[in-house]
Amino acid sequence: MKIGLLGFGVVGRGVYDLTANREDIQVAKVVCLEDVSLPDAEVTRDFQSVLNDDTIDTVVEAMGGLHPAYEFVRAAIEAGKNIVTSNKALMATFYDELIPLAKEKGVLLRCTAAVGGGIGWLSELERARRSQTIEQVGGIMNGTCNYILDSMTRLGLGYDEALSQAQKLGYAEANPTTDVDGIDTWHKVILSSNIAFGISVDESTVPAAGIRHIKAEDVASFKEHGYVCKLISTGMMADGKLSAFVHPTLVPMGEPEANVPANYNLITLIGTASGRMSFYGQGAGRYPTAYNVVQDCTDLLQGKGFYSPYGGKVAADNAVERRFYVRGDKDAWLEENAQETWGNAIVTKPVSVSAMHAWLKAHPGTFIAALPNE
Amino acid sequence: MKIGLLGFGVVGRGVYDLTANREDIQVAKVVCLEDVSLPDAEVTRDFQSVLNDDTIDTVVEAMGGLHPAYEFVRAAIEAGKNIVTSNKALMATFYDELIPLAKEKGVLLRCTAAVGGGIGWLSELERARRSQTIEQVGGIMNGTCNYILDSMTRLGLGYDEALSQAQKLGYAEANPTTDVDGIDTWHKVILSSNIAFGISVDESTVPAAGIRHIKAEDVASFKEHGYVCKLISTGMMADGKLSAFVHPTLVPMGEPEANVPANYNLITLIGTASGRMSFYGQGAGRYPTAYNVVQDCTDLLQGKGFYSPYGGKVAADNAVERRFYVRGDKDAWLEENAQETWGNAIVTKPVSVSAMHAWLKAHPGTFIAALPNE
Repeated sequence: MKIGLLGFGVVGRGVYDLTANREDIQVAKVVCLEDVSLPDAEVTRDFQSVLNDDTIDTVVEAMGGLHPAYEFVRAAIEAGKNIVTSNKALMATFYDELIPLAKEKGVLLRCTAAVGGGIGWLSELERARRSQTIEQVGGIMNGTCNYILDSMTRLGLGYDEALSQAQKLGYAEANPTTDVDGIDTWHKVILSSNIAFGISVDESTVPAAGIRHIKAEDVASFKEHGYVCKLISTGMMADGKLSAFVHPTLVPMGEPEANVPANYNLITLIGTASGRMSFYGQGAGRYPTAYNVVQDCTDLLQGKGFYSPYGGKVAADNAVERRFYVRGDKDAWLEENAQETWGNAIVTKPVSVSAMHAWLKAHPGTFIAALPNE
Repeated sequence: MKIGLLGFGVVGRGVYDLTANREDIQVAKVVCLEDVSLPDAEVTRDFQSVLNDDTIDTVVEAMGGLHPAYEFVRAAIEAGKNIVTSNKALMATFYDELIPLAKEKGVLLRCTAAVGGGIGWLSELERARRSQTIEQVGGIMNGTCNYILDSMTRLGLGYDEALSQAQKLGYAEANPTTDVDGIDTWHKVILSSNIAFGISVDESTVPAAGIRHIKAEDVASFKEHGYVCKLISTGMMADGKLSAFVHPTLVPMGEPEANVPANYNLITLIGTASGRMSFYGQGAGRYPTAYNVVQDCTDLLQGKGFYSPYGGKVAADNAVERRFYVRGDKDAWLEENAQETWGNAIVTKPVSVSAMHAWLKAHPGTFIAALPNE
């Protein structure tokens, strides 16, 4: 396999390092803006030269972001090259376009490193769904949020303090929006649901609430009630109805999710035969992520290109009901649905996930967290 | 694939159920002592009739125990049939004989359900080792011990009470020796190390200490020091030296292992690129275990027969050092190596795992637990 590698940042450099001594997988060309020179690969700023190079059979996209990643990947597919990408935004957003296009053009496309970093989650899903029906996927998919919530829970830090510590340690970016508002997790659960259920989830129907507004007082109140707050994603299919959503969720202290430390991930599937299976590991980092890119390359060599059949676009109805902890704005709807109060917060009786998120949209400064399913 | 299924107990019945509606994998014949009749498979007590049936290409062994499972599997290999087995004792004990024999005879052999029940652990190992070197394997591999230790920790039960509750719930057998003395875990870590490191571990060099002698007072003392006791297995390879052992181990309360509830398993690998990856799921049960048997059958259909190359017999030296909690007998060696006391127990300074287990062999009524690696 001769690779045209797009991007030479954290992941790209890792892929280069991990394949440096391999005969079967070789990085032939690197497209990047950095000024690097490599002993055994051509470095260029010209993506077109990858397209025109017939010796390159596979494009590894490790740039991130939607553009120009989308244009490059699309052009590479059109040019008949196999694709390996670690880009969750790209794959969640353009799944219904890139997967059918790749199949039409007879090329293979894998994106295992897009979810779970060092956890081979999408490959696990691919394997698990061979012998059973997948009923549910989800879990802790964002290391930044887990780090912040874990610091707040264990050390009693406030949100700002926990965030700035995460930034100092390189676990959060200067602009943490994508992580703390749940967008990263949102991309990941959409992509996971696509593969688990063989569909393309209509992303406009998937709501996400993040952790930006959580306060030390919330965390203290959760602790008092025996809960730990985690940002949890859910994708589930029951009786042909899809639910998919992201929100802070209260986990009973003894549950595995409650005890995921620092920036680790814990991702779970529930299958009709296997029951619950969970996967724990580093959600990011150069070598864990690059490792899964290389695993994808190995799968391509064995002719494995896709994780599941593709069955078209599906909207989530999110009619499933949960109780929610709501601290911030109050109004008639909320009072009407209140079941108890925890300090300044209202805990609702069971309301549909779609109704709760619709309410939250109109009250964007409010913090919500789902109580565990009873 | 036409299967000759040996055994129709928990796992065998599960395999039959999960394949009932499949075209590609069919149970053609069942060899068992039970008096069952099945609409679409012949039931017989005559194993020879499976060997003589040329339409049967694969033997699924779900009887358990060493004999006659060993003789049947060996004969099936000699007859040119592929093997899928869920039998950890068989595979740990006869690995260095059955693997080379299967390779010589050109048949495939898989045994994923032998470790981890519903967790596809051995397949995970096979996949993870493709793109990196595995440095360590192990974890919580026995649901019975975990159930007992969890009940003692959470509910404050004594050992006998916890065991009898586990027996009532079907999590422990009437004679619990294999589980509580660590023999089940011992088989599993030997088999896992074989596959992780591409060797056959000399099982006579792998010591196992179980949980039979743990008391409520031990658990209370661990809690006071911030620890939870779990039965943990370890297989590690560093600088060409193998360590492999099983013993109760104290886990800091925040660690993932400390929070594995009831009869669940949590099995971990550490790889040079991926770092730590852990797998959590049901360690036993009809459908989780049968699911992995069916997964193996699917892999056979794709030509996947073995998890790793085979490099010959290796002895564990167990020169790695740990501190141990020791409650029971005392003698000069122990006093000499004492570092502190916890109640009636001595906590040693770091001593080699081999020395500690040699001492334990001479003091079989004593309870030991390793402190976490510092």
